[in-house]
Parts: sequence; structure tokens; C-alpha cells
Amino acid sequence: MTVIKRTAGRLFGLAAASALVAGVSWGQAVDPDILARIEALEGTASPYVDNTFLFLFAGLVVMFMAAGFMCLEAGLVRSKNAAMQSMKNIGLFSVAGLMFWLIGYNLLYPGSWAVGFGEEGGADFGVLGAFDFLWSADNSGSLDTGYSAESDWYFQMVFVATAASIVSGTVAERVKLWPFLLFTAALCGLIYPIQCSWQWGGGWLSDIGFSDFAGSTLVHSVGGWAALVGAIVIGPRIGKYFGDTVNAMPGSNIPLAGLGTFILWFGWFGFNGGSQLAMGNFDDVTAVSTVFVNTNMAAVGGVLGAMILTAVLYKGKVDATMVFNGAIGGLVSITAEPLTPSIGMAVLIGAIGGFLVVLSVPLLDKLKIDDVVGAIPAHLVCGIWGTLAVPLTNSGTNFGAQIIGIVSIGAFVVVLSAIFWLLLKYTMGVRLSDEDQELGLDRSEVGLEAYPEFAG
Amino acid sequence: MTVIKRTAGRLFGLAAASALVAGVSWGQAVDPDILARIEALEGTASPYVDNTFLFLFAGLVVMFMAAGFMCLEAGLVRSKNAAMQSMKNIGLFSVAGLMFWLIGYNLLYPGSWAVGFGEEGGADFGVLGAFDFLWSADNSGSLDTGYSAESDWYFQMVFVATAASIVSGTVAERVKLWPFLLFTAALCGLIYPIQCSWQWGGGWLSDIGFSDFAGSTLVHSVGGWAALVGAIVIGPRIGKYFGDTVNAMPGSNIPLAGLGTFILWFGWFGFNGGSQLAMGNFDDVTAVSTVFVNTNMAAVGGVLGAMILTAVLYKGKVDATMVFNGAIGGLVSITAEPLTPSIGMAVLIGAIGGFLVVLSVPLLDKLKIDDVVGAIPAHLVCGIWGTLAVPLTNSGTNFGAQIIGIVSIGAFVVVLSAIFWLLLKYTMGVRLSDEDQELGLDRSEVGLEAYPEFAG
Amino acid sequence: MTVIKRTAGRLFGLAAASALVAGVSWGQAVDPDILARIEALEGTASPYVDNTFLFLFAGLVVMFMAAGFMCLEAGLVRSKNAAMQSMKNIGLFSVAGLMFWLIGYNLLYPGSWAVGFGEEGGADFGVLGAFDFLWSADNSGSLDTGYSAESDWYFQMVFVATAASIVSGTVAERVKLWPFLLFTAALCGLIYPIQCSWQWGGGWLSDIGFSDFAGSTLVHSVGGWAALVGAIVIGPRIGKYFGDTVNAMPGSNIPLAGLGTFILWFGWFGFNGGSQLAMGNFDDVTAVSTVFVNTNMAAVGGVLGAMILTAVLYKGKVDATMVFNGAIGGLVSITAEPLTPSIGMAVLIGAIGGFLVVLSVPLLDKLKIDDVVGAIPAHLVCGIWGTLAVPLTNSGTNFGAQIIGIVSIGAFVVVLSAIFWLLLKYTMGVRLSDEDQELGLDRSEVGLEAYPEFAG
Repeated sequence: MTVIKRTAGRLFGLAAASALVAGVSWGQAVDPDILARIEALEGTASPYVDNTFLFLFAGLVVMFMAAGFMCLEAGLVRSKNAAMQSMKNIGLFSVAGLMFWLIGYNLLYPGSWAVGFGEEGGADFGVLGAFDFLWSADNSGSLDTGYSAESDWYFQMVFVATAASIVSGTVAERVKLWPFLLFTAALCGLIYPIQCSWQWGGGWLSDIGFSDFAGSTLVHSVGGWAALVGAIVIGPRIGKYFGDTVNAMPGSNIPLAGLGTFILWFGWFGFNGGSQLAMGNFDDVTAVSTVFVNTNMAAVGGVLGAMILTAVLYKGKVDATMVFNGAIGGLVSITAEPLTPSIGMAVLIGAIGGFLVVLSVPLLDKLKIDDVVGAIPAHLVCGIWGTLAVPLTNSGTNFGAQIIGIVSIGAFVVVLSAIFWLLLKYTMGVRLSDEDQELGLDRSEVGLEAYPEFAG
Repeated sequence: MTVIKRTAGRLFGLAAASALVAGVSWGQAVDPDILARIEALEGTASPYVDNTFLFLFAGLVVMFMAAGFMCLEAGLVRSKNAAMQSMKNIGLFSVAGLMFWLIGYNLLYPGSWAVGFGEEGGADFGVLGAFDFLWSADNSGSLDTGYSAESDWYFQMVFVATAASIVSGTVAERVKLWPFLLFTAALCGLIYPIQCSWQWGGGWLSDIGFSDFAGSTLVHSVGGWAALVGAIVIGPRIGKYFGDTVNAMPGSNIPLAGLGTFILWFGWFGFNGGSQLAMGNFDDVTAVSTVFVNTNMAAVGGVLGAMILTAVLYKGKVDATMVFNGAIGGLVSITAEPLTPSIGMAVLIGAIGGFLVVLSVPLLDKLKIDDVVGAIPAHLVCGIWGTLAVPLTNSGTNFGAQIIGIVSIGAFVVVLSAIFWLLLKYTMGVRLSDEDQELGLDRSEVGLEAYPEFAG
Repeated sequence: MTVIKRTAGRLFGLAAASALVAGVSWGQAVDPDILARIEALEGTASPYVDNTFLFLFAGLVVMFMAAGFMCLEAGLVRSKNAAMQSMKNIGLFSVAGLMFWLIGYNLLYPGSWAVGFGEEGGADFGVLGAFDFLWSADNSGSLDTGYSAESDWYFQMVFVATAASIVSGTVAERVKLWPFLLFTAALCGLIYPIQCSWQWGGGWLSDIGFSDFAGSTLVHSVGGWAALVGAIVIGPRIGKYFGDTVNAMPGSNIPLAGLGTFILWFGWFGFNGGSQLAMGNFDDVTAVSTVFVNTNMAAVGGVLGAMILTAVLYKGKVDATMVFNGAIGGLVSITAEPLTPSIGMAVLIGAIGGFLVVLSVPLLDKLKIDDVVGAIPAHLVCGIWGTLAVPLTNSGTNFGAQIIGIVSIGAFVVVLSAIFWLLLKYTMGVRLSDEDQELGLDRSEVGLEAYPEFAG
């Protein structure tokens, strides 16, 4: 069985190049100096450097999204919880890295499948990779893959951290720190890598033709589903819902949330652009450029869509947090396919994402699901929409496979998230007491205040 | 008529390379394996990848300047307007992208001139390009230009967004949201691209020898002129001027403004460095390096110049906002020519920029022109200074052409900005009522507060 | 005497390549077209472009650390000093750039040694380079070194600025602005470059086998020593220590400090990754990838180490500022050797750094050394630890040389810092009066307030 990496089908034309490097016999007439010069060139001019650097560059840009989530979330919680939210984002990024090294990466790209649906011994249509702990780099085949093993690990690691960041915003202001970090460990070590292996690890979803360029489903909806289950298991913040009354709990620092939004937008160029997985030749770097433009224009659509719709719905007022989430919703919507749409389609896909955000935020409140920062509308709802939109522009895909992917990953993540959240609930407890919530998490769990001189 | 792109005269020596790629006949004795290896190398080793990546990398860094403007402006307005200022910066960046796609880019790089001063049928010395809507990428000639079409669009788009960001700071705290966004649309779709086409689009200014490496005039003074006209048309904030008394309205979050300054400084390396437009060979990447160093040292000059001058003028106190604007003023000053100055000259050019900021801020107040963040001194005054300074170090330029460029672009932008601002004034109105200003834009137009728990 | 640059021993395999470029004679049978094509390729495919770009890219990322230090420090001081702290960070970054141009770089990479321990005329085992003012670029030999001179200057300049940033946090809230900037000038023009020349300039420490990949000792401990001496000479903030009572003075904006931490983490990939000094071939870019992964995992170790230890020590509460400094401590710890450790060792090295931070913060308070932001634990203590840990994984190093390096650099920086701090103390004075400290530096020295609408 061949494990198809996320790079499947885009092998940079390196097969040919490396065959040449490997040494083809030639006629006797060749000047040895010429040969030496060509060999020297081949040593430096392979796409390996550019591809590896793309992973490092784009990964670094995605890494910075962790700071964006921190700003967004710390800005949208009340001041009594803002230090906790800041610290929690640093903590979860750390747990994500640790778990992805301990188990996650190897599960995502399994050396062999332990469980599969295939005919020959059950290993095709892979479902669960064989466990293999403590990833370490092997660059012996890297000239063939076209990038260094560590650069790939780094790039994939910041993706799993993104999924974990989504959860922390939704369950803010009432979840206990340590159970949250333990859930993050389960998400990054098991839940995320297993479902991701179905597609980017060459498993059964990739076999049936599911398509998700940079992770509308595989990253964003996964974070969204885990957040949704968390919000339900943990329950709403004390005082959020009284009967049918929804008690607004405004964010304490809107400019910080705005900065977070811009940082996420910035980071998304790495997220989607890097997911081309190569830039060492004409086609790849041109594709990265297309992805940059479409990513931007979907965010543009999301912002303007949310802006106009809120102005219409809210008597001319434009809710800033809706605009922020509109940008994110537009970005999530284009993430499943940022390469094939025309610019106009990218704007439209993003604008529908912006609409969906504005429409689904109040819906969650009706269901009394307390999503502090609006992560479920932006990441889950728009993640589904973006995945469904792929066949609109990518003729190599079909709605059937997209729906199978969305539903199967959704079901898997919901079930596993529920198991882990409930396990934590009935052992350590996941919800802070009403008193601790009233006091604020900064005082009850952190021991300092976010803004000791400002808040009432 | 040949339209000379911004890249005119720096064709990366690609002409030769691509001629070779296109296929030159050679002797019979050449080993086919050698040929194959050379062709494989040529496929990956052209400067195309590096040049395209420069646009993406530098463009991304410039994109982040939008976040810098947001932080600077949200930090320098009063807290009751800070959410609006944050949201407005996200909104304008979106409008800029949309308009540059709809009209702007095609006007900036016109396929043909509709109006010109030239002899043969009026098309040389181009003034106004033929309108051509909905830009889309054509990469058929990209190996010749040396970069992908989308990467260039992305890079140019973040430039127009920069010009728009300048306006939003000056007219903050009293302009209505929607008219502001409509002005932004006019600026990004028409005003900016038309004047820019005169130079970077190969129009009449480039024909007469005007020189502006990265846009002291074409970007920064354009934003500054549009801001100046806006400030005059809209009028000062309620309560700013009583007779001869200038009422200080201190910014609400100086550390946020400081962060914004550093983000702008960071972004300027992309702004000026990327404007070399190529880095795929020795000369270009070396030039980008020179630009990085001079850009930094001009900011250094601006900071220290502003710091020392404020200390002298204000009895030893160093106004932080002057220092921030000194950095920006130094950066704007070097933007017209960051390549030819020695380091010492770069420091000096920047220091004069810093002086100019400190001297022109009170001048504006004397004229009762209310520039909330000091954008006119930093971007317009220093933009003019920087453009005038080009012939001091670049022997291929002359003061005459520089002055013609400054004056003609200034006149064009002032007239068109006035038309659009006045059109908006007499239709929708551009200025919020005194009550709305007193209440704050966050409550009157956004419907939430930036810092609901902190402000009095 | 040959001056070995920081790049000593990693000459990119360029010797061979450039020999070829220089022109080797070949047989008569070579087709001139083939030759032309190979020469065109050699012109674009040398590692020069990639190496130079690494310096620019990584340098830019490190430059952004200046913004990270600003956020961290402005967030950890009290609100009455936050505008000063923001402005001071912009000022010190400017002074660093100026001094490194005026003297610093030339002292760091001396053309010849004025003082040395060597046998032949005293010039080997260099101790002090000949003074040579006003650095300017010379790219005549750049194809041999493999990068442009300016790109190297830029990269080294942001390193010296990092050392200066460390000092400003420790001595915050009571140091006078101008003496602080003058000390920064001495640090960046003399102290830092001289000790750095001992190693990266090819001086005596490099001759005896000291090893410090990216500057645990050469950058971070240097900043830490200078900060320690400053804290002692200036004395603690008014009201910090009463007898044995330590008066907590909580930071005013923890989310801003959290953002600063993430920006530093982000910047560290440039700091350590760029210190590979090249990425233009397989080995170098692969090494950069390894460095990225280990850098991240050490931060992970630092965060989790600090988190767990504070939870144990402080009855379950997790002090956010300890976690922030834990991240920084982990990063400093891996900086001396981010290439040779396994991932597990990187986590461990970082975790010990995190422990050291948590343990040494209270120790400083016991000694009544007032370090406002915890820079001495994070940068000095962990800098020593990281340097000592090098031989654990790098078999080409030894503890003896490491200890000699740590001690000699420590002694040198302490003595010179003491001289400069005391010189400033007895001439201009370095400490603000009690009244000015009570009033806050923003009012007494800046003339505006950081948060005029919020603070009590």
C-alpha cells in the first residue's frame, strides 16, 4: 500500500530531475568541466530549497495566527478573563506542538494503516494509522519529496494549533484551564490527526475524491465541531441566558480584537498559500500567487458581505465584531479551494461566508449555545460552506464526495470530542463554579488581573 | 505605443535567458542528456520563482501595514471612537481590494491610452488609460516579465490600500462610515490608479524623467492630499478649535499606537524592498539589501530627529506621538529613493523628515486643519520632501521633473478629491452631527463600545 | 591573520562553485550555446540570492522582535509609565541602528586586530579590533561570501538591537530617558560588538572552541548582564521594597504582554533560523528547518515547564507573566545550540529554562534587585544555561570553552556596563526623582499619558 501524502499528485516534476541527478549515462564526448558545472548547478538549483523555504515561511506566517487568535479572543472576553485567555492561547499552542510530536504527526501520515476498508488485507482506504510515537526527521528521501522533513512537520504543526485555537475562543470565560489543555492534547494528538489522515495522509477520503485544499473541513470545521461539543458539555457562561433573554456580554477590547482579525488575515496567506506545498517552479509559484489573490478577495467579500448585511439588519449600525468575523468567515470559506475560483467567484464565496456568519450568530443564541467569540459561525458554518463550494469551480470534484467528507468528519469529531469532554467533565470537571466565573478567571485561576488599573 | 510597466528598464536580463529557453540552434555534437539536464535546470532556475516570491513576500509584509495603520489610528483616537476606527481600517482595506480589481489595476497599467499628449495620434505621454473592467490574470507572458501576474496585482493592491489608510487617520472621529468608504472606492478605483499610471503605468511623467522609487509622491502624498482635502471639507472635530485655542484631544491608547508604528516600520521593508520588483539575480537582491538598510536608517533619522527637536522645543519633554510620526516621516522621506543614498544620506534624509513632522503638526493647528493622527505631516509633507531629495543622490534625475511630478499629482488629487468629497457632502453628508460626535462613533454608528469596561 | 566571520566553516560549498564560475578551461568541442546557457544559469542559480534573502527575511522577522519587546514591556509596567516604555523601545532601536553603523559593525568584524593574544605580533586570538568608523557596503567579494554585505549588516544590526531591548525592560519605570539612550549607545557601539568580535568576528573565543550558535551568551546574556548592572546602579523603583516586604507592582496590560511574547516567539525563528547564515543549498535549508523545529519545541518546553512549576508552587494558580517568561526562557535556552539537539532534548532544554525562570524571579526579589519584566531570569540565567547545555548535544564542543566564554563575556560586560552606568550616574544622573516616579514617567518625561481615559 502506498501512503499518499498531502502532496499526492503534485510531485514538482522532481521525478525527472532526480532521475537526471541520479546519473544517466551519456556519450563520451561530454566535456568533464561542463559536467561538473551542470552538477554544481543541479546541487543548488533544485526546487528543494524553494519548497522547503515555502514551508518555513508559510509556517511562520501561520504560527503568527496563534497571536491573532490570542488578540481576537482576549479582546472579545470581558476584562476579568483576558489574562487567562492570553495565557491559554500560549498554553494551547505549546500543547499542540508537544502532542503533534509525540503522536499526532505520525498518525496523520502513517507509515502503515492499522485499520482500513480496502480489499487487500484491509489496508487500502485507510482509516486509522498504526501508532508510532516520537516523530523524528528522516531526510534521506527529501530530494525526492522536494522538501525537508522538518519543514513539513513545522508547517503541519501550526495547522493543528490553528484547530485548537478555534476551540479556546468558544469555551472561554468558564472552562477550567487544565481540562481545557487536556482536551487540546486529545484534539491535537488524536482527533485532528486521525481525521486528517483520511485525506492528507492518503486515507479513504482521498481515495473517494474528497477535496479540501487547505482545510475548510479538515482544520476549521474540526475546530468548530470540537468547540460546539465543548460549548454544549460545559454549558453557557453564568448569566448569559435567562429564559428567552440573551444577556450581551460585550468584549472588553475591540481594537485588540481588530488587530487579531488582521493578524489572522495576514496569517491566512501562509495558511492557504503554503498549502500549495511547493513553489520551486513556474507552475507552483504561480499557483501560490493565485491563492494569495483569491484568499484576499474572499476576505474582502466576507467583510463587505457582513458589513452590508448587519447595516441592513441592525438599522444602519455596523457591528464591528460581525465585521471581524465576516473577514474570518470569508477566509474560512475560500480555504477548501483557493486555486480554481475566478476572482469574482472568490469574492462571492467569501461574501456568502460573511452572510452566514451574520445569520448564524443569533441562531446559536436561540439554541442557547454560548460561543464567546463567534468561532462556530466563522469556522464551522463557513467551513462547511467552503467545502460544499469546491465543485462550483473545481471540475475534478463532486458534491457527493464533499458531503461524505463533511458528514463523516463531523460525526467523528463530534463523537470523539463528546467522549473526551464528558470524560473530563466527570473526572476533573470542566466548568468553573459560578463564584469563580463571577470573580473572573484571572483572579480565580491566574492570580493576577489583565488590566488591574482600568476595570471597575 | 509600448506601455512601460513599473518594471521598465529592469528586465532582469531575462530577455537573454528566455531567448535561450525559446530554443537557439546548436551544433550536432551536443549530448542529448546534457541538453535535457540543462533544460530541466532552466525550468527551475529562472529568476521567475524568486521574483514572484518577492512580490508575495513583500506584498504580505505591506499588507500587514494595514494592521499597523489600524493600531496607530485606534490608539490615537479617543476611546469612544476606537472600535469604529478599527473596523473602518478593515473596511477600507476591503474596499481597496475590491475597487483595484474592478477598475484600478487596469487603469494603472492600461492596455492602451485613451488620452495622451503624444505626437502620433495622441497616445504617447499617456494621461488616461482606456477603461477595462474586472482584471483577471494572464500569465502567458510571465516568463518574459519575470513574475506571475497575480503576484504583481497583489503587490500593487496593498499599495493602494496604504494610500487609503492614510486618509482614514486624518478624518477620524467625525466622518460618517459609508461616505468614507465611498470616497475610498473613488480613491482606489480612480484617483490613485490614474495618477499612478502617469509614472508606474508608463505615462507622461515617466516620459519626462520623474523618479519615485516606491511612492513618496505616488502613494504617500496622494493619501496625504486626499486626507487634507477631506479634513477641510469635513471640518474639524467638534470642540477642537475655539477661537485661537487648540483643544488637545489625546489619544486613548499610546502603546497601541506605538505598536502600530513598529508594524509600519516592519511593513516598510516590504514596501521599499519589494519595489525593486525583482530579486532573482545578484544585482537585484543586492539592491533589495541596500534598500533595506537605507529604509531602516531613514527611520532611525526620523526618530532621533523628532526626539531631539521635540526635546528642544518642549522643554525637555519628548512627545511620544511626535516620535512615532517621526519614524513614519523618516520612512516616507526615503521612499522616493532608497537605493542610491549612502547610509549617512539616508539618516539625514530621514532626520529632515522627522524635523518636518515636528514643525508642521502645529502649523496645521494654526490653519485649523484637524488631522487626528498627524498623517498630513508624515505622509504629505515628508512625501514632498522625499521626492525633492531624489536628485541629491540619484544623478539620473533632476529637480525640474521632480517638481512637475509633485505639483501635477498634487493638483490632480486635490481637484478630484474635492469633487468626490463635495459630491458626498451634498448628497449623503460626510460629517456626523455634533451629538453623534459627542456620543462617540462607536455608539452612534457601530453599536458597541471599544472598551466598555474602562472608559469614564 | 585571517578574520573568521560568523560564517566560518560554513562556506556554502561556494568555493567550488565560484572556482567554476571564474572560468575553468575546457576542451574545444564544447558548443558555445551550451556554454552560454550554463553561464546564464550560473548567474541566477548560485546560492547568493537565497542566502542574501535569508538574511533579509530572517532579519525582518528579528526586527519585529523590537515590537515584541515593546508590547511585553509596555504591558508589564504600570499604566503611568507605558507611553514612555513604548517610546523608549522605538528610541533604543534607532540608537542601536545608528551606533552599529557608526562603530559597532566594524568593531564586531574588524578588518584587523588592534589587540590580541597571539604569538605573531599579538594579532591572533584577537581581543579588540582596530577602530574604523562609518561602515559602508563593499560587495566586491560577495559572490565568494555568498551574501550581500548589506543583508549581513541588517541581520547583525537587529541582533544588537535585541540585546539593547533586554536592558530597557529591567530598568523600566525609574530610569531617565536620555541617560538610558546613551547607555544604549555604549552598549551597541562598544560593549556588544567587542565581546561579539571574540566569537563571531573570529577572535580569541572562536579560537579556543567556544560555541554559541545564535547568541544565548553573545546576545541574551550580554543584555542580561547590562540590565543587571543597570538595576543595581539605578536601584529599585520607589516603593518596591520595604524592609523584607516585596511590593507587587502588577503590569497594566497583560494581553499586550501576551502579544509581545508571541511576537518574540515569532521573531525567534528568524533569530535562530537566520543564524544558519545560509539556505542556498540542501544542507543549509535543511539545517534551517531543524532549527525552526527545535526553537519551537524549546519554547514549548519553557511554557509547559513554567506552567506546571508555577501551578505546583502557587497552589494551582498559573501566573501568566511566568508563563510568558517561560516561553522566552525556553527560547533563550535553545539559542546557543538549536541545530544538534533531538526534539526531545530541545523540549528538555527549554523546560529547564522555564524552571529556571520560575525559580530565579523570587531570588532577584530576595536580593532586592528590581527587574520590572523578568528579563534577567529569562535572558541572563537561561542564556548561561543554554550555553552550558551545548556540549550535551554538540560533540564538537566542550564545557571548558563554554565556561570560559560565559565567564569572560560576563566579566567584560559587567565591568564595562558598570563604568558606563556609573559615569552616567555621576554626570547626568540615571534615576528619576521619587516625585517623578510617583507621577509617572509619561507625565514627567513624555508629556502625555498612555491611557488618559482609563487609569485611575
